[in-house]
Amino acid sequence: MLDACLNPAMASEITLQPVRRHGVDAAIFFSDIVVPLRLAGVEVDIAPGVGPVLAAPLRGRADVDRLIEGARTLDADRLAPVAEGVARTVAALGATPLIGFAGAPFTLAAYLVEGKPSRDHFGARRLMHADPGAWTALTEWVADIAGAFLRAQVLAGASAVQLFDSWAGSLTLADYSTHVAPASTRTLGHVRDLGVPIVHFGTGTGHLLAAMRDVGADVVGVDYRTPLDEASRTLGGRTPLQGNLDPALLAAPWPVLEAAVRDVVRRGAAAPAHVVNLGHGVPPDTDPAVLTRIVELVHSVR
Amino acid sequence: MLDACLNPAMASEITLQPVRRHGVDAAIFFSDIVVPLRLAGVEVDIAPGVGPVLAAPLRGRADVDRLIEGARTLDADRLAPVAEGVARTVAALGATPLIGFAGAPFTLAAYLVEGKPSRDHFGARRLMHADPGAWTALTEWVADIAGAFLRAQVLAGASAVQLFDSWAGSLTLADYSTHVAPASTRTLGHVRDLGVPIVHFGTGTGHLLAAMRDVGADVVGVDYRTPLDEASRTLGGRTPLQGNLDPALLAAPWPVLEAAVRDVVRRGAAAPAHVVNLGHGVPPDTDPAVLTRIVELVHSVR
Repeated sequence: MLDACLNPAMASEITLQPVRRHGVDAAIFFSDIVVPLRLAGVEVDIAPGVGPVLAAPLRGRADVDRLIEGARTLDADRLAPVAEGVARTVAALGATPLIGFAGAPFTLAAYLVEGKPSRDHFGARRLMHADPGAWTALTEWVADIAGAFLRAQVLAGASAVQLFDSWAGSLTLADYSTHVAPASTRTLGHVRDLGVPIVHFGTGTGHLLAAMRDVGADVVGVDYRTPLDEASRTLGGRTPLQGNLDPALLAAPWPVLEAAVRDVVRRGAAAPAHVVNLGHGVPPDTDPAVLTRIVELVHSVR
Repeated sequence: MLDACLNPAMASEITLQPVRRHGVDAAIFFSDIVVPLRLAGVEVDIAPGVGPVLAAPLRGRADVDRLIEGARTLDADRLAPVAEGVARTVAALGATPLIGFAGAPFTLAAYLVEGKPSRDHFGARRLMHADPGAWTALTEWVADIAGAFLRAQVLAGASAVQLFDSWAGSLTLADYSTHVAPASTRTLGHVRDLGVPIVHFGTGTGHLLAAMRDVGADVVGVDYRTPLDEASRTLGGRTPLQGNLDPALLAAPWPVLEAAVRDVVRRGAAAPAHVVNLGHGVPPDTDPAVLTRIVELVHSVR
């Protein structure tokens, strides 16, 4: 998986396939949130059926310091496979825009602390309270790694970026604001001068939508749990949204799925703009024909 | 683990230990949400470091039908180890009340469908959309199993019950109301005539608090993500609350933890009544002395 992400021809081909097959209006660069960690020298792999697994989870301050001291800088050379993958993709896409991609500092730090996917990301949340200094050092380092990864994609031609704080939903608003938002703002600071739209997405983040916008996002991604009209109200009716069809509906009979798609489009009209998308990733066993049919439906009603 | 739950002397001893050690105001019966499934004949075990694992996850309608046809009825004989464990505990507790315990139909059904703990409980949520008939049959059966388990505990002397829908937070409000609430109401129907207070808890359920009350709960448990004053506002200021100290704070320096406990108590005062508790389970590596200190602090400020 990570080898494919760092193989420009392969990453480009995988990025292009859904555009060719389903006729979507934009592509998102095929990568993984741990790619910048791997490029920085962190020993990480994607275990089938599990997700990212790290050789040495961080146990405390000493581990954090060792990580940062031993890490490689993400300079242009190191990021070359990513930039080349993006450039190839942009050339092949023509008028269709490419969205760049990075994991946000909290989610990346949670992987570094837990060593693997976890429920509630308890180890990371404990570290931020037990040793806020170590937590700040860690998230600032991660913020810069993720920011460099995003910047390389925009400089190579990506038209927008999406920051994935997949696990932010495990945080209280108070902890997000104090212990996470500054690092996310720092990541986005790496691309702000480039002027591309910034999308910010998380799951289970109904209580964090405004805070996630206020780190510097132009568009807020909303998972399937929060209806878009409600999300738009929370955001004062002035923030474009992305989302939020429930992937669990992809296996439903078409009339049920069609009604759900129309409902998402209708509720999304409450926002000043709406990028139709799933409210989380595509499940591996999804019938691709269903995705094509959804794209056709959305194009027919817009 | 499941053997301990079904050994009356052992379940009673484990229930009593935290009462003796920390001086809490109530005990909660030591059990596991899958105990009633095991008693009904489902092949399930608790795998160390994983959680409940089922020999035969349900793949669709045929599996659901087979499960229900093959299941044992939870009559008084079958529930005798639970009733005896509760009766022993109540006798030993004296004036300290015992809270009975059961998993709610959605969470139990999610285990049955997924076969193990999962993120977002996708398989269960897919089944409710792909085959609502199978889903209804499954959750009605599970509702009665869980209800029988709760009723046995109250008849044996429990003074209150808590229904744990640990995973309900993965649901939209619409799905909760349509596909889950009727089964939870059915479970609570098994104990309503007994007149004991009913507590209903889930995690990540900030968007479901009113719906979870309205299945028939007297007290709503609130996980650490939603501040109690906000939860009380959501509930119209008329529902007693339980919760919600973030377990991630248990490893923080005492001044940080103390401030957090005082904040929980202060915000809880917005509700007509408040049972102080953690906002999720106790992490296994928690220093027990910290728990004792929290209990002392809460008793000193009430």
